[in-house]
Amino acid sequence: MTFKLPIIKPVDEAAKTAVLERQNNLTKPPGSLGRLEELSVQLAGAMGRKRPSVARKAVIVMAGDHGVVAEGVSAYPSEVTPQMVMNFLHGGAAINVLARAAGARVVIVDMGVAAALPDHPGLVKRKVAYGTQNMAVGPAMTRAQAETAVQTGIEIVTAEIKKGVDLIAIGEMGIGNTTPSTAIAAAFTGQPAAALTGRGTGVDDAGLLRKIAVIERALAVNHPNPADAMDVLAKVGGFEIAGLAGVVLGAAARRVPVVIDGFISTAAALVAAELETAVKPYLIASHESVEIGHQAVLERLGVRPLFNLDLRLGEGTGAALAFPLIEAAARIVDEMATFVEAGVSEGAK
Amino acid sequence: MTFKLPIIKPVDEAAKTAVLERQNNLTKPPGSLGRLEELSVQLAGAMGRKRPSVARKAVIVMAGDHGVVAEGVSAYPSEVTPQMVMNFLHGGAAINVLARAAGARVVIVDMGVAAALPDHPGLVKRKVAYGTQNMAVGPAMTRAQAETAVQTGIEIVTAEIKKGVDLIAIGEMGIGNTTPSTAIAAAFTGQPAAALTGRGTGVDDAGLLRKIAVIERALAVNHPNPADAMDVLAKVGGFEIAGLAGVVLGAAARRVPVVIDGFISTAAALVAAELETAVKPYLIASHESVEIGHQAVLERLGVRPLFNLDLRLGEGTGAALAFPLIEAAARIVDEMATFVEAGVSEGAK
Repeated sequence: MTFKLPIIKPVDEAAKTAVLERQNNLTKPPGSLGRLEELSVQLAGAMGRKRPSVARKAVIVMAGDHGVVAEGVSAYPSEVTPQMVMNFLHGGAAINVLARAAGARVVIVDMGVAAALPDHPGLVKRKVAYGTQNMAVGPAMTRAQAETAVQTGIEIVTAEIKKGVDLIAIGEMGIGNTTPSTAIAAAFTGQPAAALTGRGTGVDDAGLLRKIAVIERALAVNHPNPADAMDVLAKVGGFEIAGLAGVVLGAAARRVPVVIDGFISTAAALVAAELETAVKPYLIASHESVEIGHQAVLERLGVRPLFNLDLRLGEGTGAALAFPLIEAAARIVDEMATFVEAGVSEGAK
Repeated sequence: MTFKLPIIKPVDEAAKTAVLERQNNLTKPPGSLGRLEELSVQLAGAMGRKRPSVARKAVIVMAGDHGVVAEGVSAYPSEVTPQMVMNFLHGGAAINVLARAAGARVVIVDMGVAAALPDHPGLVKRKVAYGTQNMAVGPAMTRAQAETAVQTGIEIVTAEIKKGVDLIAIGEMGIGNTTPSTAIAAAFTGQPAAALTGRGTGVDDAGLLRKIAVIERALAVNHPNPADAMDVLAKVGGFEIAGLAGVVLGAAARRVPVVIDGFISTAAALVAAELETAVKPYLIASHESVEIGHQAVLERLGVRPLFNLDLRLGEGTGAALAFPLIEAAARIVDEMATFVEAGVSEGAK
């Protein structure tokens, strides 16, 4: 396979202008809905629609395991990854509840879980390998594996878009995956691992120091090249992270906005943006998480999260919580009356 | 009428403990849903339920006019208040759109609009007077009027709760009402008007200076007594603010949590809390608004808003946007699987 980046168009400036003008004529002081108004303009530009609708929503949750877990970087064992995938398929996880509440469907993808998973109608089986290699001793993936995983993400989101979807959220499950995400953040931002490393699902103080040392070692052993995003992804990434980078690229190529979740999914979006900067206007950051490296990655991406609810779960949970806010932003444009329609006097402009 | 405060019970500690224990057994790292977990515990304590449900939601929007508008404190004329009430009744305002999106009903109340409003099945007509008096020259209301307005709010929310509702949001419409709200904030916090006065719907620099001077004059002329919250409300309040204080008191008395919106509705909640501090655990702050005095009022109340989306519209819009987050918090407790149920290994605790 020779990997090729999809073509991503610039946003539709005419649609943005049309929505901005309409916002200024709706029965409210101009600008008084703040970031909701900004969101509606962003949706219009990304989707190329003067009345953007995001009624059809999906969360794509990708799962993968990480060889680096052998270094003791996580509070949970790798066996939890397939267990949680089964929990997703049975509808009992947080992302199932939050997606149902938001009226969104959930797509679960095995990108590289280190266990055989049963066939299930809700599971998309695209395993690239049974987990990555231990990046503390060598590259997590080959470059060909990384390219295959990104391409898989593009194909999966393209298939979902063909089924009909207006807005995509990305989420992940993979014991140990804050470790590669931190290494990715360090590689692209140039900041030291110690400034970017958090507790993930909850390692203690000794675990945190070990995790920082492991990330430093992975960067020293592999020398990821930040000017070559595929090199960074292959050496210190993960299969679910690569797949989600592909989802971002594939969604943007079809003008579908992508809602990013916490630290790991933001690292995946950053990989996509470093591969192709044109994805940026298609990204909506849902929340700022507890994970300390998240802010640096959001800044590097140039996105501002909608809220901070002290979340640190992943799975796409924060992104699903943002769905109603984004849908509200679109509905304001479509459903509110203008001053003229409602017979309301305008203020001094 | 002799006004009497309703009796408000302390929260249910056993229900809080039960929800906290359940949160720690659900298939996620303990605490990883952050403020959603806190919200679920608060709902349990307030409602006295181990599995709180907030499926039935209502926004109570109260409208009133303000004599102080004669001083030139608003970017819009008072005629906009009844015009916007008609817009609410026809479903074209922002609060209509956002309440529909959240699956909430809207209750519109004329507490003191300075114009006769037509009969309409969606309008609760409880006008105390045709607008307040100009507080820059004397008290906005008599004490009896303030008490009547608070009592009206208690009656209205009690009637709504009897119809069936789990969660109430409060919103308001009243040209000029950031001015009395700022005076209320200054009276209770002791901070100078200049530190608390914002642009409301959008006055210019000259308007802002005039507004600060008017608030200082209202405080100097009326000497509101912060130890007597009804005195503050009568002298520098408004009919819709008083009504909403009553909604808070009446809802808390029946263990229904109240979601507060922006600066004005938070000022109303503060009046309720200064009348009866036991309302505090029943309050959920939705957002921090652009209005600069909002933070001081939130701090005085001891509540932490869920998000900041640069909103400054009022009507209950920010509170309606918080509904899905609060409902999600409740549904997590009810619908997620535990580690044992899902067969997922727990991490080191």
